[in-house]
Amino acid sequence: MTTTARAHEITTAAEQLFGRQGYHATTIRQVAGALDLQGGSLYAHVSSKEALLAAVVERSADRFDSAMSAALDCNDDPSAQLRHAVAAHVGVITENLPAATVYFQDWRHVSTPRLRRLRHRRDAYEQRWRDLIQTGVGEGHFGCTDVDMAARLCLSTCNWVYQWFRPDGELTADTVAEQIAGLLLDGLRPASRPSIEESTK
Amino acid sequence: MTTTARAHEITTAAEQLFGRQGYHATTIRQVAGALDLQGGSLYAHVSSKEALLAAVVERSADRFDSAMSAALDCNDDPSAQLRHAVAAHVGVITENLPAATVYFQDWRHVSTPRLRRLRHRRDAYEQRWRDLIQTGVGEGHFGCTDVDMAARLCLSTCNWVYQWFRPDGELTADTVAEQIAGLLLDGLRPASRPSIEESTK
Repeated sequence: MTTTARAHEITTAAEQLFGRQGYHATTIRQVAGALDLQGGSLYAHVSSKEALLAAVVERSADRFDSAMSAALDCNDDPSAQLRHAVAAHVGVITENLPAATVYFQDWRHVSTPRLRRLRHRRDAYEQRWRDLIQTGVGEGHFGCTDVDMAARLCLSTCNWVYQWFRPDGELTADTVAEQIAGLLLDGLRPASRPSIEESTK
Repeated sequence: MTTTARAHEITTAAEQLFGRQGYHATTIRQVAGALDLQGGSLYAHVSSKEALLAAVVERSADRFDSAMSAALDCNDDPSAQLRHAVAAHVGVITENLPAATVYFQDWRHVSTPRLRRLRHRRDAYEQRWRDLIQTGVGEGHFGCTDVDMAARLCLSTCNWVYQWFRPDGELTADTVAEQIAGLLLDGLRPASRPSIEESTK
């Protein structure tokens, strides 16, 4: 096995263990054990448990970036692009639930300077959402006044999927993404939006 | 100090430490140390670290329940009630950030039968959101077709606040709650909702 392939395998094992047990509750020995390696030989590939955490988080960031690029690679209007972006983001989470758990819950345990790089990547990713919404506002598709907050709330709704999605459940990732996009675009109110007086008559 | 007051104090110390460091990374000795107690004397009050985790999570559940009861204790229409509910939920999170972190990230580390009770409480709390939205649909205020999903997505957006809210930041909890409620009720599209053809002319 090449060094790159071995590193990939180690990151995958760490991703699963950190995601299922929590970063702090997982030892390097357990990661090595999952690969039938000795703890010592693992250190030939990774310098520390924290470096392994950073690798897991970076891999998630890669997945989000790639999926978002594919989602935005179209000339659709901003509403359609938002649907694509939601599907992409939700897809990354649902296809990699343990990784998403690490990404969202444990990334703060990475120390600087690695943490600084991760923050920068997160900011850049969120900026793509802000740009998408800003374009939608500019073209009259979206009516929100605070683009930063709107982007944050869109991501909030998508991110939380890692907490409740079950791969063996009734809902597919596509259905979840459609429902989220629908709520984000149109809100809870009915399309005709009757006034309170009319609707309670 | 009474036994009840001491138990309250211990739960508060655990809440802060679990929330800031993570449940797994915190020892009973640290909780005792935060109160100038010996580890041994802490065990006169709590049977295990896991029992302490359950106490922390139960306290958060109490807060969410009380705040929701106060929010719904009015005769406003469902849209206004949703605003109150969002403000209540966001208020509990922003006023107790370490507790919210434990509530959302570590509650699964509680074992049965305590976990069963906690699940039951979470379900009951989410049911109140489903009931609120169902009433709104019934009265024509809301137009969503999947009430369960709508309730889940409302809570998702609110819950994620624990990840990014900064007590010393520019945004107050009230502003955050208003923005969330606005997005949930009206979505991103402008009130007039121009068709794509019209808006891109």
